[in-house]
Amino acid sequence: MSEAAANDDAQKPLLSTLLHEGVYRIVMQRPERMNALSREMMSALSDELTKAEADPNVRVVLLGAEGKVFCAGHDLKELTAARAESDGGKETYQVIMRQCSDLMQQIVRHPKPVIAVVTGVATAAGCQLVASCDLAIATDTATFCTPGVNIGLFCSTPMVALSRNVAPKQAMEMLLTGESIDASTAKDFGLINRIVPGDYLEQVVQKYAEVIASKSAKTLKIGKEAFYRQLEMPLAEAYDFAAETMVENMMAKDAEEGISAFLQKRKPEWTDT
Amino acid sequence: MSEAAANDDAQKPLLSTLLHEGVYRIVMQRPERMNALSREMMSALSDELTKAEADPNVRVVLLGAEGKVFCAGHDLKELTAARAESDGGKETYQVIMRQCSDLMQQIVRHPKPVIAVVTGVATAAGCQLVASCDLAIATDTATFCTPGVNIGLFCSTPMVALSRNVAPKQAMEMLLTGESIDASTAKDFGLINRIVPGDYLEQVVQKYAEVIASKSAKTLKIGKEAFYRQLEMPLAEAYDFAAETMVENMMAKDAEEGISAFLQKRKPEWTDT
Amino acid sequence: MSEAAANDDAQKPLLSTLLHEGVYRIVMQRPERMNALSREMMSALSDELTKAEADPNVRVVLLGAEGKVFCAGHDLKELTAARAESDGGKETYQVIMRQCSDLMQQIVRHPKPVIAVVTGVATAAGCQLVASCDLAIATDTATFCTPGVNIGLFCSTPMVALSRNVAPKQAMEMLLTGESIDASTAKDFGLINRIVPGDYLEQVVQKYAEVIASKSAKTLKIGKEAFYRQLEMPLAEAYDFAAETMVENMMAKDAEEGISAFLQKRKPEWTDT
Repeated sequence: MSEAAANDDAQKPLLSTLLHEGVYRIVMQRPERMNALSREMMSALSDELTKAEADPNVRVVLLGAEGKVFCAGHDLKELTAARAESDGGKETYQVIMRQCSDLMQQIVRHPKPVIAVVTGVATAAGCQLVASCDLAIATDTATFCTPGVNIGLFCSTPMVALSRNVAPKQAMEMLLTGESIDASTAKDFGLINRIVPGDYLEQVVQKYAEVIASKSAKTLKIGKEAFYRQLEMPLAEAYDFAAETMVENMMAKDAEEGISAFLQKRKPEWTDT
Repeated sequence: MSEAAANDDAQKPLLSTLLHEGVYRIVMQRPERMNALSREMMSALSDELTKAEADPNVRVVLLGAEGKVFCAGHDLKELTAARAESDGGKETYQVIMRQCSDLMQQIVRHPKPVIAVVTGVATAAGCQLVASCDLAIATDTATFCTPGVNIGLFCSTPMVALSRNVAPKQAMEMLLTGESIDASTAKDFGLINRIVPGDYLEQVVQKYAEVIASKSAKTLKIGKEAFYRQLEMPLAEAYDFAAETMVENMMAKDAEEGISAFLQKRKPEWTDT
Repeated sequence: MSEAAANDDAQKPLLSTLLHEGVYRIVMQRPERMNALSREMMSALSDELTKAEADPNVRVVLLGAEGKVFCAGHDLKELTAARAESDGGKETYQVIMRQCSDLMQQIVRHPKPVIAVVTGVATAAGCQLVASCDLAIATDTATFCTPGVNIGLFCSTPMVALSRNVAPKQAMEMLLTGESIDASTAKDFGLINRIVPGDYLEQVVQKYAEVIASKSAKTLKIGKEAFYRQLEMPLAEAYDFAAETMVENMMAKDAEEGISAFLQKRKPEWTDT
């Protein structure tokens, strides 16, 4: 990368965003830094997610990236720079790991579905970002790995998300060998939902997201929140909770409208309440 | 459906049952109502499961359905009728959701293996019914979906069972898009065990069930109960519990008989004790 | 087996071991007893695992077996002999089940990656042994089953490990039918990582293990321990724990060395600290 390009990049915002038909695209645009999760990048992503949460026009969030690397995980230069601090970087690392864990959980707790759109390499915390999204679509050239073990830093936070998507031995192989898996393997493992040829990606992703954007935002919010909560409960408790959730959902206007529309064979009109 | 047919149906029991070689078939026969889980249907299913539990001649339970729809989930007309109640239906919904959750857990807690036999569309709580069974066999024309989101009512109780069968992103895709998956995808996801061409279904299912029916009922009861209990425990606790279960099982007559028969190369004779 | 062969076997140690390039092979060599987990065999395995833990030259452990049966599970003759005891064997069974559960958990808690190398039939507690390892490689002739139900003794302890590797309905089918699955199915289910033709097994396994052996032992220890611990926590707690683990790992010498080496594009030199 030339100096000029670097300067251009310095001007360019970390993220680009676009809202179209209820679908909000957030695109990381630091390809020359492999879209690393610097503190600045994590803040920017968190801010955009907060905005998306507040904006009623946003119904679904897409999370993508420019360039051949979707996201390379933590910014190693930033981590290394902190070594010079009097405590060897410990406090800074605590702040960074906390910030990263908060960002990942913000996606999980976000009231709107968040879909990763992966067109390149997703590494370490970049792979975690994919795993943390509700859904993920990738091109056939995307790859995934948790290679921290190669640099002496086990992918311990990435594995929290990874091991909640992928069977233990499959997760362990990625974590212990540091080797990459291709998109097809990632789909078999349950890490991504769909594989799309690059040329068709834009249209497929937009359509896929619009299908979800066409649902009641109220219903999506109730359902997504309940999904992750009940997942952590024993069966009997999960049923008590989910049964209550169903009743709450039945009392919402959009359930009344949706069921009426269905019985009357017409299209529902959501009020998102 | 003509009035006459409806009247015929009113006479026809909700369920047909048949016991053959220890295999008890329960078949929902309201195809014209898409075998919806009305309160009446849920009661009937629960009663049959209770009978199957008490009857020592029943060793395995099959759960099937007549028609092109295995089960369409809750009875939307019944749900809508309750809107006219003074509380907008809330109490009725609480009763129905409780009844449904109890039915699903009755399958899980049933001392005998319960196998879903799916020859058509399994939707919402119908998909939950499949997920709640210990095993599931389907024809290649069966499909599965949790489309509540399309009518403003997220499939929150179905997802309790679904998300305990299927990886999170796969479950989320079904829940957020409301789209169907075919039998082959359902098998890949772990929602069903086997796919059988329709013409061979009867024979294959009967044979499959008889294999299980030939085991000691005592052993199956110990094992099935322990399976779901240990699944919710941390590893160390699960091992403590399972080790105790093994000792209890070893002290049962059928383990003594089974091991002796094996060492003597003869067929065991179970007393189910 | 002739008497002479049996006598020869009595002289032969239960296990052979070999350390090469940081990879420690433990091989069960009682093929004529189907490598059953007698108390003696479990003690021998446990002792070897303890030695492997203490020896800094051991970086990865391989667990294999001689003959066509990888491991047939508990020693049924030993179990049957205990029936003659005054309590019908109960106390002995408690001791044996405890010993077996401890052995399996010793693998999980072992600070070094343990890889099963399966060249034959893995049955009952033998299948559990495979499931308990961090990774598993098998030949295309390997098969897996939990057939305790056939002899009246449900595979309750094996299912603890099995059901933490394999989806519930898939585990249930193995447990309730007692039927075998082939290597390809085991890979689909997530029970094993890779399938290798028998002729290439030695080289592939050695290379695969050496890849892992080339990592920092300190990093592997931190990561493996954290993996199984976080798996049992709810998401928020898992992130708190994993974030702390990452900070601890960042403060280790090998992370500093590994990250520096990466940024300087050189090979890291681990001190395993």
